[in-house]
Amino acid sequence: MTLRIIATGGTFDKHYNELNGTLAFADSHLPAAIKRARITTPCELEVVSLLDSLDMVDADRQRVLAACQAASEKAIVIVHGTDTMPQTAAVLGPAIKDKTIVFTGAMIPYEIDNSDAFFNMGFACGVAQVLPPGVYVAMNGQIFAWDNVQKNKAAGVFQPL
Amino acid sequence: MTLRIIATGGTFDKHYNELNGTLAFADSHLPAAIKRARITTPCELEVVSLLDSLDMVDADRQRVLAACQAASEKAIVIVHGTDTMPQTAAVLGPAIKDKTIVFTGAMIPYEIDNSDAFFNMGFACGVAQVLPPGVYVAMNGQIFAWDNVQKNKAAGVFQPL
Amino acid sequence: MTLRIIATGGTFDKHYNELNGTLAFADSHLPAAIKRARITTPCELEVVSLLDSLDMVDADRQRVLAACQAASEKAIVIVHGTDTMPQTAAVLGPAIKDKTIVFTGAMIPYEIDNSDAFFNMGFACGVAQVLPPGVYVAMNGQIFAWDNVQKNKAAGVFQPL
Amino acid sequence: MTLRIIATGGTFDKHYNELNGTLAFADSHLPAAIKRARITTPCELEVVSLLDSLDMVDADRQRVLAACQAASEKAIVIVHGTDTMPQTAAVLGPAIKDKTIVFTGAMIPYEIDNSDAFFNMGFACGVAQVLPPGVYVAMNGQIFAWDNVQKNKAAGVFQPL
Repeated sequence: MTLRIIATGGTFDKHYNELNGTLAFADSHLPAAIKRARITTPCELEVVSLLDSLDMVDADRQRVLAACQAASEKAIVIVHGTDTMPQTAAVLGPAIKDKTIVFTGAMIPYEIDNSDAFFNMGFACGVAQVLPPGVYVAMNGQIFAWDNVQKNKAAGVFQPL
Repeated sequence: MTLRIIATGGTFDKHYNELNGTLAFADSHLPAAIKRARITTPCELEVVSLLDSLDMVDADRQRVLAACQAASEKAIVIVHGTDTMPQTAAVLGPAIKDKTIVFTGAMIPYEIDNSDAFFNMGFACGVAQVLPPGVYVAMNGQIFAWDNVQKNKAAGVFQPL
Repeated sequence: MTLRIIATGGTFDKHYNELNGTLAFADSHLPAAIKRARITTPCELEVVSLLDSLDMVDADRQRVLAACQAASEKAIVIVHGTDTMPQTAAVLGPAIKDKTIVFTGAMIPYEIDNSDAFFNMGFACGVAQVLPPGVYVAMNGQIFAWDNVQKNKAAGVFQPL
Repeated sequence: MTLRIIATGGTFDKHYNELNGTLAFADSHLPAAIKRARITTPCELEVVSLLDSLDMVDADRQRVLAACQAASEKAIVIVHGTDTMPQTAAVLGPAIKDKTIVFTGAMIPYEIDNSDAFFNMGFACGVAQVLPPGVYVAMNGQIFAWDNVQKNKAAGVFQPL
């Protein structure tokens, strides 16, 4: 099973900038995370964007869709900001029928203590190889269909509609 | 989907004992890891043993089998030492037909830098919810059938027979 | 030698708030850090404030001064934001002659990968026990007199005037 | 103030070998730790050995002494295993009168959660710049004279004789 991981940014990949004290984007953490995971199946990483998902516009979501359509792999993990993950999933859901697309992300950046990022990445890399074709969101140890998921921002968890 | 995680020990759960300088077992890291993963699906943890898998004997593997048979959950993740993971899987494989059992572990303990443990745990928690009933080993970002997996100890990776 | 550690906030103690994605203050990391350091000398922790040092006003600096004056210990470490650390040191410098006061902080929060916080804390806890009475800033592995130090914000390092 | 850091091995620098499950030595963690500490004072690292201090013999201690005698810096930190740190300090104590030598180490390896290594390194780098010439042991947030220190192995702490 060949796997493609598409980075779009989001909390997962935020990096602390010590010169101005903000969390922003520098290099993606995913190359290091893939190596750390000791993945021996062929695994391609594609960085489509490094954006806070609140800053994503339609054109950004179309680029994610195009990347999925252009991919030769049948199993794709998309690392995405949590705030608009369901919106991007809703762009891909009606359009992709022949691949398994799994969105995931993190509540705490990969580089910060107590981060869920590495667990979520493992979870998504697993179910992307097993689920039937379609578009899914994987967060909180659960799998959601793209058209039945929302982020409960007050509680910081994903849940069905 | 309800999930059971069974701890048996192994590298995943080893802990540095600062008084004698050895890696041994104290409390399992799994309660903290489950919390950190922000799993919102019901998830039961059962500590069957805390053993280096090289020290496991037949009776220990039978206890793992019995725990799986007694479980009410249909999805079970077993955290196990890598050295004899295929052997324990081979005890469960012929015996369990109605549940999805996924073995996983770690090449580096959860508490040590660069550990694969949290990724593997996420991977296993995901595929255990999706794979058809049967017994599997999940390591290196791959899923292996219980009767077609071995640890390549020289390379430190799992592969088919 | 008895030691007092005074927390005022700053980057050292910032905490990622996963509900809104900001770095802010929750509980100080210092109780955990003191335990982790295995300090066996008597060591008192006093949390005077938990503020970004850019938000500190004169009254906040006066509270730090008052805490130092009230302390019975002769060796005091003050964990402080880097942006106005020299300003607070300049309030204490002319006022305290009978104690050794060492300011330190961090360029990266304690809870984020690659943080200098724990090194700086160790450095300050050491020199506070050895330097003659006076007020100092300890950052970047160096000791600065309170009246001859500035933060080079472009480079992210402390240096003499 | 110029600083020399001499690595001799010890728990500080132990590394988990995932192929055989042991803690042993590979590359020293000190180059990464020095960079992480953002030390801006000139700082030379010299790796004299990478040994468990229980395996050190007289010749190893003589090499540490020779390295200190050959050093041009007046402030030297020696990272050493805790089990025989006082013995090596006792070799240097009578022989070195013109430099400040501070031994330190760790109860938990640098790369393992909850390690004291980075704090101890900061502590030693600080006091080595301030203490009068002589040989010292710095552990547990305290400074010990080389001829009045022992490791309490049952408690895992350093204390006076």
